[in-house]
Amino acid sequence: MKQKLIYAAMALTIGAASIKAQQVPAYLDQKQPIEVRVKDALSRMTLEEKVKLCTAQSKFSSHGVPRLGIPELWMSDSSSGIREEIQWDNWGNAGFTNDSCTAFPALTCLAATWNPKMSSIFGKAIGEEARYRRKDVLLGPGVNIFRTPLNGRNFEYMGEDPYLASKMVVPYVKGLQSNGVAACVKHYALNNQEVWRGSIDVQLSDRALYEIYLPAFKAAIVEGGSWSIMGSYNKVRGQHACHNDLLLNKILKGEWKFDGCVVTDWGGAHDTKEAVFNGLDIEMGSYTNGLSSGKKFAYDDYYLASAYLKGLKDGTYPMSSIDDKASRILRLIFRTAMNRNRPWGSFTSDEHYYAARTIAEEGIVLLKNESAKKKEAILPLNGNKYRSILVVGENAIRRLTEGGGSSVLKVKKEVSPLAGLQAKFGDKVKYTMGYASGKPVYDREVAPDFNTDSLHAEAVKQAANADLIIFVGGLNKNNFQDCENADRKSLALPFGQTELINDLLKVNKNMVVVLLSGNAVEMPWIKNVPSVLQAWYPGSESGNAIANIITGEVNPSGKLPFSFPVKLEDNAAHSFGSIAYPGDGVKEEYKEDILVGYRWHDTKKIPALFPFGHGLSYTQFKYGKAVADKKNISGTEYITVTIPVKNVGNVKGKEVVQLYIGDEKCSVIRPVKELKDFQKIELAPGEEKNVSFKIGKDALKFFNETSHDWVAEPGAFKVYIGSSSTDIRSVVNFVFN
Amino acid sequence: MKQKLIYAAMALTIGAASIKAQQVPAYLDQKQPIEVRVKDALSRMTLEEKVKLCTAQSKFSSHGVPRLGIPELWMSDSSSGIREEIQWDNWGNAGFTNDSCTAFPALTCLAATWNPKMSSIFGKAIGEEARYRRKDVLLGPGVNIFRTPLNGRNFEYMGEDPYLASKMVVPYVKGLQSNGVAACVKHYALNNQEVWRGSIDVQLSDRALYEIYLPAFKAAIVEGGSWSIMGSYNKVRGQHACHNDLLLNKILKGEWKFDGCVVTDWGGAHDTKEAVFNGLDIEMGSYTNGLSSGKKFAYDDYYLASAYLKGLKDGTYPMSSIDDKASRILRLIFRTAMNRNRPWGSFTSDEHYYAARTIAEEGIVLLKNESAKKKEAILPLNGNKYRSILVVGENAIRRLTEGGGSSVLKVKKEVSPLAGLQAKFGDKVKYTMGYASGKPVYDREVAPDFNTDSLHAEAVKQAANADLIIFVGGLNKNNFQDCENADRKSLALPFGQTELINDLLKVNKNMVVVLLSGNAVEMPWIKNVPSVLQAWYPGSESGNAIANIITGEVNPSGKLPFSFPVKLEDNAAHSFGSIAYPGDGVKEEYKEDILVGYRWHDTKKIPALFPFGHGLSYTQFKYGKAVADKKNISGTEYITVTIPVKNVGNVKGKEVVQLYIGDEKCSVIRPVKELKDFQKIELAPGEEKNVSFKIGKDALKFFNETSHDWVAEPGAFKVYIGSSSTDIRSVVNFVFN
Repeated sequence: MKQKLIYAAMALTIGAASIKAQQVPAYLDQKQPIEVRVKDALSRMTLEEKVKLCTAQSKFSSHGVPRLGIPELWMSDSSSGIREEIQWDNWGNAGFTNDSCTAFPALTCLAATWNPKMSSIFGKAIGEEARYRRKDVLLGPGVNIFRTPLNGRNFEYMGEDPYLASKMVVPYVKGLQSNGVAACVKHYALNNQEVWRGSIDVQLSDRALYEIYLPAFKAAIVEGGSWSIMGSYNKVRGQHACHNDLLLNKILKGEWKFDGCVVTDWGGAHDTKEAVFNGLDIEMGSYTNGLSSGKKFAYDDYYLASAYLKGLKDGTYPMSSIDDKASRILRLIFRTAMNRNRPWGSFTSDEHYYAARTIAEEGIVLLKNESAKKKEAILPLNGNKYRSILVVGENAIRRLTEGGGSSVLKVKKEVSPLAGLQAKFGDKVKYTMGYASGKPVYDREVAPDFNTDSLHAEAVKQAANADLIIFVGGLNKNNFQDCENADRKSLALPFGQTELINDLLKVNKNMVVVLLSGNAVEMPWIKNVPSVLQAWYPGSESGNAIANIITGEVNPSGKLPFSFPVKLEDNAAHSFGSIAYPGDGVKEEYKEDILVGYRWHDTKKIPALFPFGHGLSYTQFKYGKAVADKKNISGTEYITVTIPVKNVGNVKGKEVVQLYIGDEKCSVIRPVKELKDFQKIELAPGEEKNVSFKIGKDALKFFNETSHDWVAEPGAFKVYIGSSSTDIRSVVNFVFN
Repeated sequence: MKQKLIYAAMALTIGAASIKAQQVPAYLDQKQPIEVRVKDALSRMTLEEKVKLCTAQSKFSSHGVPRLGIPELWMSDSSSGIREEIQWDNWGNAGFTNDSCTAFPALTCLAATWNPKMSSIFGKAIGEEARYRRKDVLLGPGVNIFRTPLNGRNFEYMGEDPYLASKMVVPYVKGLQSNGVAACVKHYALNNQEVWRGSIDVQLSDRALYEIYLPAFKAAIVEGGSWSIMGSYNKVRGQHACHNDLLLNKILKGEWKFDGCVVTDWGGAHDTKEAVFNGLDIEMGSYTNGLSSGKKFAYDDYYLASAYLKGLKDGTYPMSSIDDKASRILRLIFRTAMNRNRPWGSFTSDEHYYAARTIAEEGIVLLKNESAKKKEAILPLNGNKYRSILVVGENAIRRLTEGGGSSVLKVKKEVSPLAGLQAKFGDKVKYTMGYASGKPVYDREVAPDFNTDSLHAEAVKQAANADLIIFVGGLNKNNFQDCENADRKSLALPFGQTELINDLLKVNKNMVVVLLSGNAVEMPWIKNVPSVLQAWYPGSESGNAIANIITGEVNPSGKLPFSFPVKLEDNAAHSFGSIAYPGDGVKEEYKEDILVGYRWHDTKKIPALFPFGHGLSYTQFKYGKAVADKKNISGTEYITVTIPVKNVGNVKGKEVVQLYIGDEKCSVIRPVKELKDFQKIELAPGEEKNVSFKIGKDALKFFNETSHDWVAEPGAFKVYIGSSSTDIRSVVNFVFN
């Protein structure tokens, strides 16, 4: 009888379908405000349908509401490109041939541009690739703070400074989301190492949390308007981050008023009750259906699936909990999959390659540039001066978009450093591998029987006869390198590269070292190598970008987004024994507190090998004297500091003018100085520009743990303006009262 | 240098990207007329990109233009539901769990409703399912004419009459395409058998072509506005249908002015030159990439891939050919994948099940309804009269949505006839299989060791003690039944069903036979069985629809869309030896010419077992005398014929009032009569309605082969109005001059 009534009602619907002026339900009406649509959709859904929304249906998609025509959400891993299609329910590739993407540079490289415009272009372009590949949610960008150079995923993040990462993440999120593809900022929060990432319980002060580890996430959410965020694997103060009362309820959804979705990292949920009450919305990757779990319908066994439904029905969990989660998910769907206005995207377009190359060129950092013979610097390299250029090193030919964990890419094009250099210098370029990291991934078909010793000897032999050596080394995407799921074992270059560089230097000091890595490395040979480039992982246009920098067609302008310590013990996290890193297997204490990166080096007076903000140019910039418009500010007043910067060299160049502020005296420990503003400017030879910064109360604040508020204490402050965190060119004093 | 210029141009683009008032290219501007958008897109494409559009990239998708953000086209098999997801490059299922669809009835069942509103609902609903599953092109509907009851795919088509099929296909196409999902009407043309379908060369007269085999396609294109059409496998007059000058250039794109895409059936292309010049646009399924062909990049070897590109470059093929094809494909993309206005679809909704059930209920045909004891008819079945109802037959429990070739479905729900009857009659229903067709597909896990003889004996034993037998038989979707790729071997019921029915009748004459099939079958037992239902393949709601008809909750109103011959030789195609069917392996001559189906039975005075248009009701309709408003018409005048029809029975019912016209004298052979109009009306008991038909010159025409035109010859015509093609209730004469 009940069925009959339903059918009778539907008969009317079908009858009405032929009437043109059919009423569109509010949830399908793009003109209605989103909250009206959410409410309307929710009112039409069964409890079962609401609960379904909260879990995965496959490796990379979550449920829609088929009956109501509410689409599924399709997600994609994306550190620096759109991951290839995988199978429905396992990590095996799906054999598609339309998914070879553009590889953009790693996010460390983007951060090293210190150019928010590059972030905007990056976000827009990668979003276009995601959209063309029919993705609704892009699982990025990553903004975990660089705490230790051993962290296997540092290459996916934006460095050690909360201010820089904040400024860079906001335009990325906006550019990306202009495609109707959601950002899913990750990994929230404190997933700063891969060792024990699934269980380690991070203990830290409120100040370290608020001042160092949260600001980039807050900026992505509050300023960038990110529609989703990914919880991390680790625990924070005893609770898993994916269902963490402090991080999700109190801070994200409370203090930041986030109205979007919290998505687990894959397999990051561990408890139904916590997931229900502590802010989780979408649970992904908990089990693989019938494979790893050995169960047949494992998706029903998700923490937010049958167990949640049962608890809702028997009153264990309040209906308000599911209405809140479903509303957030509907909001995300309306913003993405059901967004009629979103563009169609594009894929592997010339514009995307151009964007990838430009970002790489602006992100590559010239660490050192001298001459072997103490005359003019070796770079930019004048090809006419050399009869033979010997390129040494596996990274000159290795595909560095492969491996690395979830950031792995299947790319349509990847120009190797060797190919880039050959395009510039033709037959002058010879190549020898020198060292090998094992079976090379760039060609899985052919497995030459490498003998590392003979490769080493051969390289040294050839080096003796070369005019110039370009050593292309660094890390790669193998386990224990720049790769998910494990941390590096030391700060040293792996695979005997240090020994090789030393042996090469014995026969030929005319050497440029190009490092591809997403992390800081030790450089015991630094005094003997005239020029060093930190090239990160530049993506599809790798070789072209590197070669353009080497030849000087592009003048380098990248600045380090994190400090390179001389040795591991110089890094803050490694100064307190294993309890500070990697923890005791259960918990870990962030004993360095707020003194992360340059804050540590500055405050503890431990010089870095290359400091935060460092990066040379082929021209020189002369800074004049900084002048402030006031000597005192109070309340909501601003002080404006202006400094003239002049290009006193011979070529056009870009400079990042950095502004740090130090609190002369404070009731709590504060770092000597902290980055509070920067501007990247371009100057022609001889050109001078006045660079102005406006400083208000917010730039003076620290997080007061007692009042749980940001506080600027009255007193004297110092403004440091310079070309890096240690290369300060002018200082201005003022008083806040 | 050239690269530099390109990059410089792109630098401007990227720079401009930050300017809000960016100019949207015309091809991305939904407000521009489609032809402007096509032209603009074309002007931006390289030759390579244009050629790419013409071929598959995977089993069910064709290339887009990634660089320009022009999406791929995703297609889906769809005879009566959206096929499950298969792998990128082979027919294996992709293991998705979100693709279990609603099964709508087979198209023969839809045709049997004789209700264009049902077609509209069918098209709209299946289009919603396609849209929700993110498909752009639905590979259907099929409108090949039923020429022989042996054709394995008749169940996917709309019967033997060009007028009925035309009236039914138009609303289907419109309903479907209202979702922004293209119809791909198939299989164009003359794919009227599965034997030798890939090579058989069909020879037929222009009259048979134009009068019988083309009208439904023409209606789908010209009236329905179908955006694409699928070429068939066979040859027509020496050329493969997928690149056939007559069918595609002259008729489809010439006479019918079709501006959409011709898509091959999978693997239906055979020659580059013919494909280029003879109207093919999109080539699908020619090879499987690296599998069946043994080649690694077989998609490049498609007839319209590298060979075409090479020929365009060296001048063998004109650029106009690719511009025409690419324009058509772009048009299709703009109408579907890039259509911002299309709705989101829905999937396995209650409305879709309701639609499936309603269509099934209107399509099921009551072929015969008497009483075993010559009193009142056995149907509708009054459950109270029986203590025990024995259901016999494998089709009562078999999943008939599985198998059948490309029409195979993975369904979310399929109510079996047995389940439907049990829901009505509860414990009174006993079941015995009686016969088995082999390992049952409804449960692949359990493979009972069937012994057909013992199943037969057990059924007869139980029948002796039952009050009533409901035999549920017919065909199934195995090879040589209702299945792609082969034809049936005889008109008889398979698997010993005839013998079983005869043996059951020996012990119990109180029997209802329910036939599930998409084809006509022999019924040597017909005189001894009081009631027979032709239930087709009703889809997800199979059992509910059948049970509702059996109980009388729904009064049957379906009419046969093709003739059931007494024996195979009574069918026209089987009256001329093997050259007429199945051909000699090379060619086949349609010797029966225009005399297909009832046209043959009528004209040759060969009574059918059940004639075209036949179908009983639980009520009776009394037809009065038909009256015409004129005795003569000429030129563009119309004659209106009106007939009163009254429900003289006790229950509400629907009747299809059929109008046929006969040309009394003609310079060419014409059938006795041809269907030219019909109306399905509903009448309450005692209610009478006047049914009016307007007849103009077009209804009088035949195709004149000499003048290549439709001609109405002056003279006397007869209007036959009746309840089937043989049950004529009133005749009106008039003269056309």
